[in-house]
Amino acid sequence: MEKITVLGAGSWGTALAMVLANNNHDCLLWSHRENQASEINEDHTNKKYLPDTILPLNLRATNNFEEAIKHATTIVIAVPTKAIRDVCQDMIEYLNEKKLFVHVSKGIEPDSFKRISEMMEDELPSSNVEAIVVLSGPSHAEEVVLHHPTTITAASSEIDAAKKVQDLFMNTSFRVYTNEDVVGVEIGAALKNVIGLAAGIVDGLGYGDNAKAALITRGLAEISRLGISLGAQPYTFSGLTGMGDLIATCTSVHSRNWRAGNLLGKGASLDKVLDEIGMVVEGVRTTKAAYQLAKKQQVDMPITEALHGVLFEGVHPKEAVDTLMHRTKKHELDDFKSF
Amino acid sequence: MEKITVLGAGSWGTALAMVLANNNHDCLLWSHRENQASEINEDHTNKKYLPDTILPLNLRATNNFEEAIKHATTIVIAVPTKAIRDVCQDMIEYLNEKKLFVHVSKGIEPDSFKRISEMMEDELPSSNVEAIVVLSGPSHAEEVVLHHPTTITAASSEIDAAKKVQDLFMNTSFRVYTNEDVVGVEIGAALKNVIGLAAGIVDGLGYGDNAKAALITRGLAEISRLGISLGAQPYTFSGLTGMGDLIATCTSVHSRNWRAGNLLGKGASLDKVLDEIGMVVEGVRTTKAAYQLAKKQQVDMPITEALHGVLFEGVHPKEAVDTLMHRTKKHELDDFKSF
Repeated sequence: MEKITVLGAGSWGTALAMVLANNNHDCLLWSHRENQASEINEDHTNKKYLPDTILPLNLRATNNFEEAIKHATTIVIAVPTKAIRDVCQDMIEYLNEKKLFVHVSKGIEPDSFKRISEMMEDELPSSNVEAIVVLSGPSHAEEVVLHHPTTITAASSEIDAAKKVQDLFMNTSFRVYTNEDVVGVEIGAALKNVIGLAAGIVDGLGYGDNAKAALITRGLAEISRLGISLGAQPYTFSGLTGMGDLIATCTSVHSRNWRAGNLLGKGASLDKVLDEIGMVVEGVRTTKAAYQLAKKQQVDMPITEALHGVLFEGVHPKEAVDTLMHRTKKHELDDFKSF
Repeated sequence: MEKITVLGAGSWGTALAMVLANNNHDCLLWSHRENQASEINEDHTNKKYLPDTILPLNLRATNNFEEAIKHATTIVIAVPTKAIRDVCQDMIEYLNEKKLFVHVSKGIEPDSFKRISEMMEDELPSSNVEAIVVLSGPSHAEEVVLHHPTTITAASSEIDAAKKVQDLFMNTSFRVYTNEDVVGVEIGAALKNVIGLAAGIVDGLGYGDNAKAALITRGLAEISRLGISLGAQPYTFSGLTGMGDLIATCTSVHSRNWRAGNLLGKGASLDKVLDEIGMVVEGVRTTKAAYQLAKKQQVDMPITEALHGVLFEGVHPKEAVDTLMHRTKKHELDDFKSF
C-alpha cells in the first residue's frame, strides 16, 4: 500500500484515483473546490464529471493543498495543461522529501515549445524529485470507471520509476506498459489533438472513411517526423501513446477536438465553434505551437500546415483538403527516410 | 492512353475500372456473367454491386475472356482470393506478349502460406510477366465512386512498374503512393481482416473505445512481427496498407469481418454468424492460416491466438479478452526489439 495524492478532480483525475483506491492504495484526491471534496467524502460521487459512478469508499478527498502534498510519496498531477507551472510552484513549500511525480497532461507550451515534463523540471527543485513519469494512452475516463479493458503507457527516462508507476496502477482491467521515451510519448499525446481536429473537419465535409484512414495514417507520419527531430524513438509512435491514442481521438465522437473540427468542416467559424463547445479545445492552441515548432525544426508537416491555414488564415476546409490531395507523387516511405 | 483490362466486376473491380476510364484509358471490364456485361455496356450501371452509380460512358464491359486478355497491356485482377490460381491458369493460352499484372486481393493461401503475388508467380509463365504490382490501402469502393478523397499504395519489387501503376490510377481524388515492399503490403492486407474480426468481437462485448484502440495498436504490432519475420520492411506497417487499412476495417460497420466479429461478441456461434452474413468472411480463413504461420515462424501473436481459440476451440470471447489483459507486465517496445 502506497501513499498517493492525485491533484485535480476532473474526470480523468478522479478515474485514476479510483483505480489507485481499488488497488488498495492510500489515495487522496485534491480538489480546488471545497464542495466537490465534501461530495466525494460524504456521498462517494463526483457527479459533475462522472455522473453515474460510485467511487470506492476508501478514496478520500481534500480541499487542503498542504495536506494533499504532505500526504504522499507519489503525486499524480491531473490539472489542465495551462495550470501545470502554477501547481508546481505552489507545492514547493510543502516538499520536505523526494517524491515521485506522475503527470497525465497533453500539450506543448506556446513560444517556449516545452513539453509538460520540461515545464515540471523548470519549476520543481531537482532535490525534491525522485523522477517524473508521464502516463498516457487511449483511455476515456468514462470507460475506465466501468472497468472496461484499458491499456496505457508509463514513460520515464528512469525506467525503475516507470516500473513503479506500472505496479501502482496495473490491475485486471487496467494494463500498464513501460517505456523510456518521454519525448515520443509527450509529443504523440500533444499532437494527436491536432490530427483529431483535422479528422473532425474531414468528417464534417462528409469525405468518408477512406479519407479519414488516410488522414490518421499520414497524420501519424508527420507527428513521428516532428518527434524524431526532437529525439523521440520512432517505434513509440506505433504504440499506445501514438497510434493508439490517435485512433481513440479521431474515431470517437466524445473527443472535444473532433467535435470542434466537425463543426468547422460543416462551415462554422472558429469563434462560433469555440463558443459552442464552451470549453478549451486544446488542439487549437497546439496547432499554433506545432506549426511554429515544425518551422523551427524544418520538418514537413502538411496536415498541420493545412489546419493552421483553416484555423488562422481563413482557408476554406475543402480547399485545404484539396491542396493535400494534389501534392506531387510520392514514394510511401519517403517520410521515413530520416529514421 | 493505355489499354487496360480489369478482371472481375464486383464492387472493387468496377470502381477501379471507373477510375481508369475517368483517367481516359481504354479500359475493358470483364464479368463472368453475360447479363452483367450487357448492363454495363447498355445501361452504364452495375446495380448489384454499386446500386447508385452511373458508370463512365467510355467504360466497356465484356463476357469474353479471350477478348479481355488480348485487349490489354495491363491486366488488373480483381477476383476473389480463392479464384486467383484458376484465373491465372485460364489466361495463359491468350498471353502472346509480356503484360503488366496488378492484383487487388487479400489473403494467405491455407497450407502453402503463399501470398497472392506468389500464387500468381506460380501460375503465370515468367516470360509473359513484365511485373506484378499489388494495389492496396484504405479504400471502400462506395466512396471511390463518389470521388471522395482516397489514398492507396502500388507496391512492386520492380519500382518502375509501381510508378507506372501510380500514373495509370492517380487523379485529383485518388492519390497513389509507391512502395517496393510487396511482402509488407500483402501481409498487412491479409492480416487486417483477422484484427477486424477481433475488433468486432470487442465491440460486440461492449468493451468500448479504449479496448478497441488497444486492440488495433497491439494488433498492428503482431502483424508487423509476423511480416518482419517473412522479410517485410517495418515501416510499411505504419503506412496506408498497414495502419491505414486496419483502421478503415476496424472502425467501419461496413466491414464484413467486423460485422461477423460483432455477432460473435454478442454470443452467436460461428456457424450462425457465417450463415447470417451469407458471404465469405475472409478473416476466418486467414485466422487459421495466420495462426499456423505464426507457429511456423515462431512469432508471438497473442490476439490471433486468442481469436483462433474463439473461432475453432470453443473459447468464450470474454474469456479470450480477459486472457489478453492478464499477460505479464511488459515494456511497450519489447515487440520491436527484433527490428
